[in-house]
Amino acid sequence: MATNTIKIAYIGGGSQGWARRLMYDLALEPRLSGTIALYDINLNAAKTNQRIGTLISNHPDATGKWTYEAIPTIEEALKDADFVIISILPGTFADMAMDVHFPEKYGIYQSVGDTVGPGGIRRAVRSIPMFMEIGEQIKLHCPDAWVINYTNPMSVCTRTLYKAFPQIKAIGCCHEVFETQHLLANMAEEMLGVTVENRKDIKVSVTGINHFTWINEASYQNIDLFPLYARFAEKYVHTGFEKEQGKWEESVFHSSNRVKFDLFRKYRLIAAAGDRHLAEFMPPVYLKNPQTVNDWKFHLTTVDFRVKDQQRKIAENEEVFTDDTKIVLEPSGEEGVEILLALLGIEDLVTNVNFPNKGQIQNLPNEAIVETNALIRKNSVQPVRTNDIPLDVANMVNRHILNQEAVIQAVLTKDKNLARNAFVNDPLIAAISYEDAVSLFEEMDVWQQDQ
Amino acid sequence: MATNTIKIAYIGGGSQGWARRLMYDLALEPRLSGTIALYDINLNAAKTNQRIGTLISNHPDATGKWTYEAIPTIEEALKDADFVIISILPGTFADMAMDVHFPEKYGIYQSVGDTVGPGGIRRAVRSIPMFMEIGEQIKLHCPDAWVINYTNPMSVCTRTLYKAFPQIKAIGCCHEVFETQHLLANMAEEMLGVTVENRKDIKVSVTGINHFTWINEASYQNIDLFPLYARFAEKYVHTGFEKEQGKWEESVFHSSNRVKFDLFRKYRLIAAAGDRHLAEFMPPVYLKNPQTVNDWKFHLTTVDFRVKDQQRKIAENEEVFTDDTKIVLEPSGEEGVEILLALLGIEDLVTNVNFPNKGQIQNLPNEAIVETNALIRKNSVQPVRTNDIPLDVANMVNRHILNQEAVIQAVLTKDKNLARNAFVNDPLIAAISYEDAVSLFEEMDVWQQDQ
Amino acid sequence: MATNTIKIAYIGGGSQGWARRLMYDLALEPRLSGTIALYDINLNAAKTNQRIGTLISNHPDATGKWTYEAIPTIEEALKDADFVIISILPGTFADMAMDVHFPEKYGIYQSVGDTVGPGGIRRAVRSIPMFMEIGEQIKLHCPDAWVINYTNPMSVCTRTLYKAFPQIKAIGCCHEVFETQHLLANMAEEMLGVTVENRKDIKVSVTGINHFTWINEASYQNIDLFPLYARFAEKYVHTGFEKEQGKWEESVFHSSNRVKFDLFRKYRLIAAAGDRHLAEFMPPVYLKNPQTVNDWKFHLTTVDFRVKDQQRKIAENEEVFTDDTKIVLEPSGEEGVEILLALLGIEDLVTNVNFPNKGQIQNLPNEAIVETNALIRKNSVQPVRTNDIPLDVANMVNRHILNQEAVIQAVLTKDKNLARNAFVNDPLIAAISYEDAVSLFEEMDVWQQDQ
Amino acid sequence: MATNTIKIAYIGGGSQGWARRLMYDLALEPRLSGTIALYDINLNAAKTNQRIGTLISNHPDATGKWTYEAIPTIEEALKDADFVIISILPGTFADMAMDVHFPEKYGIYQSVGDTVGPGGIRRAVRSIPMFMEIGEQIKLHCPDAWVINYTNPMSVCTRTLYKAFPQIKAIGCCHEVFETQHLLANMAEEMLGVTVENRKDIKVSVTGINHFTWINEASYQNIDLFPLYARFAEKYVHTGFEKEQGKWEESVFHSSNRVKFDLFRKYRLIAAAGDRHLAEFMPPVYLKNPQTVNDWKFHLTTVDFRVKDQQRKIAENEEVFTDDTKIVLEPSGEEGVEILLALLGIEDLVTNVNFPNKGQIQNLPNEAIVETNALIRKNSVQPVRTNDIPLDVANMVNRHILNQEAVIQAVLTKDKNLARNAFVNDPLIAAISYEDAVSLFEEMDVWQQDQ
Ligand SMILES: [Mg+2]
Ligand SMILES: [Mg+2]
Ligand SMILES: [Mg+2]
Ligand SMILES: [Mg+2]
Repeated sequence: MATNTIKIAYIGGGSQGWARRLMYDLALEPRLSGTIALYDINLNAAKTNQRIGTLISNHPDATGKWTYEAIPTIEEALKDADFVIISILPGTFADMAMDVHFPEKYGIYQSVGDTVGPGGIRRAVRSIPMFMEIGEQIKLHCPDAWVINYTNPMSVCTRTLYKAFPQIKAIGCCHEVFETQHLLANMAEEMLGVTVENRKDIKVSVTGINHFTWINEASYQNIDLFPLYARFAEKYVHTGFEKEQGKWEESVFHSSNRVKFDLFRKYRLIAAAGDRHLAEFMPPVYLKNPQTVNDWKFHLTTVDFRVKDQQRKIAENEEVFTDDTKIVLEPSGEEGVEILLALLGIEDLVTNVNFPNKGQIQNLPNEAIVETNALIRKNSVQPVRTNDIPLDVANMVNRHILNQEAVIQAVLTKDKNLARNAFVNDPLIAAISYEDAVSLFEEMDVWQQDQ
Repeated sequence: MATNTIKIAYIGGGSQGWARRLMYDLALEPRLSGTIALYDINLNAAKTNQRIGTLISNHPDATGKWTYEAIPTIEEALKDADFVIISILPGTFADMAMDVHFPEKYGIYQSVGDTVGPGGIRRAVRSIPMFMEIGEQIKLHCPDAWVINYTNPMSVCTRTLYKAFPQIKAIGCCHEVFETQHLLANMAEEMLGVTVENRKDIKVSVTGINHFTWINEASYQNIDLFPLYARFAEKYVHTGFEKEQGKWEESVFHSSNRVKFDLFRKYRLIAAAGDRHLAEFMPPVYLKNPQTVNDWKFHLTTVDFRVKDQQRKIAENEEVFTDDTKIVLEPSGEEGVEILLALLGIEDLVTNVNFPNKGQIQNLPNEAIVETNALIRKNSVQPVRTNDIPLDVANMVNRHILNQEAVIQAVLTKDKNLARNAFVNDPLIAAISYEDAVSLFEEMDVWQQDQ
Repeated sequence: MATNTIKIAYIGGGSQGWARRLMYDLALEPRLSGTIALYDINLNAAKTNQRIGTLISNHPDATGKWTYEAIPTIEEALKDADFVIISILPGTFADMAMDVHFPEKYGIYQSVGDTVGPGGIRRAVRSIPMFMEIGEQIKLHCPDAWVINYTNPMSVCTRTLYKAFPQIKAIGCCHEVFETQHLLANMAEEMLGVTVENRKDIKVSVTGINHFTWINEASYQNIDLFPLYARFAEKYVHTGFEKEQGKWEESVFHSSNRVKFDLFRKYRLIAAAGDRHLAEFMPPVYLKNPQTVNDWKFHLTTVDFRVKDQQRKIAENEEVFTDDTKIVLEPSGEEGVEILLALLGIEDLVTNVNFPNKGQIQNLPNEAIVETNALIRKNSVQPVRTNDIPLDVANMVNRHILNQEAVIQAVLTKDKNLARNAFVNDPLIAAISYEDAVSLFEEMDVWQQDQ
Repeated sequence: MATNTIKIAYIGGGSQGWARRLMYDLALEPRLSGTIALYDINLNAAKTNQRIGTLISNHPDATGKWTYEAIPTIEEALKDADFVIISILPGTFADMAMDVHFPEKYGIYQSVGDTVGPGGIRRAVRSIPMFMEIGEQIKLHCPDAWVINYTNPMSVCTRTLYKAFPQIKAIGCCHEVFETQHLLANMAEEMLGVTVENRKDIKVSVTGINHFTWINEASYQNIDLFPLYARFAEKYVHTGFEKEQGKWEESVFHSSNRVKFDLFRKYRLIAAAGDRHLAEFMPPVYLKNPQTVNDWKFHLTTVDFRVKDQQRKIAENEEVFTDDTKIVLEPSGEEGVEILLALLGIEDLVTNVNFPNKGQIQNLPNEAIVETNALIRKNSVQPVRTNDIPLDVANMVNRHILNQEAVIQAVLTKDKNLARNAFVNDPLIAAISYEDAVSLFEEMDVWQQDQ
């Protein structure tokens, strides 16, 4: 495949966060160029992205040159694409408010509400038909394309693509593990007095599922980081640890890592996602109520905040349109472009991806979307095996895998009863009474299909 | 193997319930005879059983003649046995009181307390070393014997035998499914106006694990019982159903089947154990508090009751020793003797047994002790495959399987932390706060190994 | 399902052997009645069967009454059938002559030529499209019907039905194991002086694949038949054994069982098919040339013989049409009607069937059509697990399984190269040079698809 | 683990080839140093290696400094080793002559005779007890050591280590795939006019078993090498291809790659071992007789040649001992030292290794020793998944896997009959008559255990 006539179909991106990051990284990579077909159900959002992308590509520092085009139909956008990137927002802010905040009525607090818990399940029910549609379109218009999904709930959405089109070449990507590598690098610096040049010098073996991901091997050069992390977690479990202590209070996305340290002390694996994600997979230990969340030094992400954040991004766009010198090209820290390079055969990559379980984790169900390392090479993603997950962690992970599988099956077979059974079995929901859980299911209209 | 010189080693039996039932059934089976070596850690209990067994065998109506001998050591009892029957009471009534009642302090009510929940796990921790010892002794003294376990927690104890001696030929037996067949027979009579001659005319396909067992196919002659049960459960879910309505109030072991009907409405499989067992595997839907239990029309079995029940049995023995005309030979309704007949090649048997999963339930973990039908023939127990368990039920069952596996691994590797993680993950325990669960774990001394 | 309004679709049956047997057995079973829709690509053959069936059903001794109707289209024949029986002859006698005799040019002798070997593979290539078509029609017209296939190559044809319609409820049936039970019964009579009342009193555990089937457990009452068979095979391996010694010379279908005895001495399992089938799965040990076959005391079945046999059957029909007193109702020894009774819930049956491997043989590939015991009950066929096949036998069986799977994949994906690779890997063919094998493949026109 | 106090136990090495290569590579690696404990059943051979190793380490160009010590007992050599390297010669040249040449009496020609075929199986029977012993010693004296095996039959020897000590951390290494990468590099240069800097720039996905290894993905930069190889194989299948055409005639270890090209045309995968190894896994297509071998342009390696080769190496040693300026440090092209670096955390490595199948090849048996890529990192070897092997190749590979497994089981359970069944099922042996095969088995004394 030529590396200068690449076609990428970008599905979604109206919310701009992920799209912009990719645009920057592409502009900074001289070995690739081609066309980005931007498709969003909101054509204007795609057009905005076209304008931004074009500005970025035209930036004097841009060494990678791309043509951005807003495309009105998904069919046309996908047609003969070499790569498909999916980053949609399933539903409206009103939907999200229902997902995240309504359960508070029953005492269920969610720090993100997009993966598991009542919000995650409701969002899943809504996303599954969208991803069935996208999968079927890919089958028709670009069956050989590599598909990178960034949309949450990651495991559910990616699994649905494989349900729609079993031969699809799709992976799910998420940066939460990278953050944990940064934490381990900071730990090494703090505890060993060394300087870690690069996040990637922290070698990790990844296991579990997205946002409930675990590291079961970690090293820096010839140093096993597990004994070190044991001491580190012990030292900081009460105060938390950040590179700049106390910074977690400044941003809803940050935390003091106390949840991670506590999980290590209990389960002896390094939980590898933000505390706000991890907390949602557990019974309400960390999410009992807002005070508990504050005590554990992380945040509930409100939808209000998200609305404002979106407005801020739009304002930034306007600024840029007025004055394109505001654009400063900087690497995003994401790996999307490295993945493209690897899939094109330019540079091998070993990184963590979400991919169907083909035996890489022998004690989790086959075909479930699990997160492990993979070796990415020309036109090839091959998962790297990881050791069996310890029984206690396996049990918690498996519960979410089967719950998510049940939700997918429920939507595909129109079996509301099955969806409800999965819902009441979620650990956050199981903490309220069965009767309340069923009421919540109905009041939130989790099913969303009867209308 | 000759059928008139059989040696059965009976391990345990001090509590006499199961031992006596077997003695009656053996006395009523003319095709078998031989010797029963009775071993109990309480030699006097074994001697009492020797006296009772001898009286029963000498009964004029007894057509099967057996020699009963109390044996002081397990080695001698097992030596060259053809069959081993295990029915021990792991621990004292004081242990049982701790298992069952102490958790009430934290609002956890248990209807039996011997399988899962805080009591079941504590009992498991105590039983595992005993079954390791028994398994190792069997390996040494009668490796070719067939082993029938009646002890709870059934899955844990049977799994431990296989851990101790992987070539062991062991099955676990329990009569809960038979009771469900009786219920289905009563249903057929009530709903169809037919007369079901024999429990075994109700054909069932069994799946799941002991006491959290499910029927996924049921028929009577050419009638599929599932649509019928759907109507039946709907009709009686509020009032309950018994052959003699209201009888559940007379005995702590009885129930009105309301839990079973409710489970059917939710999960669309026929739960196949007593309500008091089923309730313990679920979050505290049915066991919220004593009033809830009463509303669902079943009982909490107190240890006080068990103490009295034991005294009653002892008194009965005394009566029989004084006046052996009190002995009335009647079939027990258990299948132990039918299993012996099948294993000896005299009569094939298809029945439900607890056995390592060798693929009979493809979506539960391999080697876990699961309960399914098996074909029993001369020196052969072969599980019959059953369809995949639906995802919602599979998720609940699997949680207990992995929890039990974790408890076994914890005890065998002396990993108290793992035991605690399994404990807090039990559905009844997960309903209280994490902190309370950990306190309960310590206060109950679940670990019992630090002493 | 009512048992007196059953609809059976009979596909094929032009050759009459299997059809007639079923008609007799149905006539002798008072508990069932209904309609048989007879479909054959040769409508006249179906009409002949209609006449015969009607005569048999009208026979004064017939207690089971059936309406036979020749139906011109498969769609109409299948429409709403409760059961489908497939017994087709894939191809003409000319095809069969090519299958069986052409390879003799290269020194390959086949005793049947319909399962494996050059003839079996060529027949498979021809049958696969037919069974795809039948499977697809069943999906459309009677998706809930139980399908019983009698057509060879059994494993290939049945597997193809599952490829066409994965939810199909299909089994494959064959009487070869019954013959082996008869042999074991004769052995017991000869060696033990007992009288075995019924073939079914010989209990066997079956494993392997059709016509290369093995018994790994066998008992009669409380007697393990394996040590006995070891002595028996040793005694008769040179002379052969038949109930009436020397009878094998009278019929091409009979043998002296020498091959079976030899296989036992080598592999220590009881091969459970006729010698003429077994020999074809092995390298040319028993099929080196016609003299070897004669020495091993079995036969090459010629197509000439089959043509004459067919003419004989037609003549018999004519006789019967002229004089219906010639009809004598006798049980056929087949189990088709017992299977119907079991599937209707009237009487449980444990017997050997060909069924997708769902774990019943853990060391053979999943989903391959294997032959094991199954428990058949109302609307339910559930395989009974059998122990792992010993490595040496597993290796031979697996080679044929993968070869057959390759042939199916070759035909479905139109990959002639893959078909050729499977062909040259057949044990009978691998004994000639690679170059000769490829010539044979072309000269026989194994592929048959280029025309 | 410190990288300057490493202890390596070297078991075997008397034959010096592999030992010397490692010594050179270690001398050229400045980041490692420590001690090499040399153990050989011939202590003098170990002492010779001590002398050579010391000379090499003292060489002025040597940047990696190692202490070499001949150790008289394996226990002492293994004691607390960090790494164990096994490179033994199982048996004498007389044994080897029997392995390789005796079968010629029956028309079986072997090009190597150390992996499969009559020679490979006889060598396996002899090696298994040795590797059981080594595995048990490792368990006792250095259970945490990483073990690298270079001994053939590779799969059998490595599998036996895991049988002896299931927790062993062992891999098997072989350079045959590297040679294939060189061939692909040469192809790229020839066909594309590019210059490939480094063998490792040829990216390959490896599958199969050692010496019957296959490449199912191959690329150079962004070029898929499969279509290229198809043209290349077509072009050179008759003449062969070498970098220097005709060179194969100079060395018994070289070939013209005609076998590899022919296998590609038949099986559409790139066979990734020397032609002389590959030929032995097939029926006698390429090994019909010496003339055929010559026509296919590879060689039969005679034992005479090996004896002389050994003498030459000894003479070289003497020369070096007399005049150490004869030592010229050059990298060997092997990867042993790179593997040490990776296992020590110094540099990640993705390469092909022989390792138990933990799902990396889903359609080959679990736990069989298969050859695939692996990611090697600090104290971690994790196989990389590869796609299912096509059915035709899988069938051939699987036959050898099960045969080798049978041989191991035969030796461990002292079951000569099973060994014979595996022997007669080898493709080279199956080409002669069954009777001859059995005679060969006895005349070669394959079993070697009755003495
Ligand atoms: Mg994420
Ligand atoms: Mg019970
Ligand atoms: Mg047949
Ligand atoms: Mg090698």
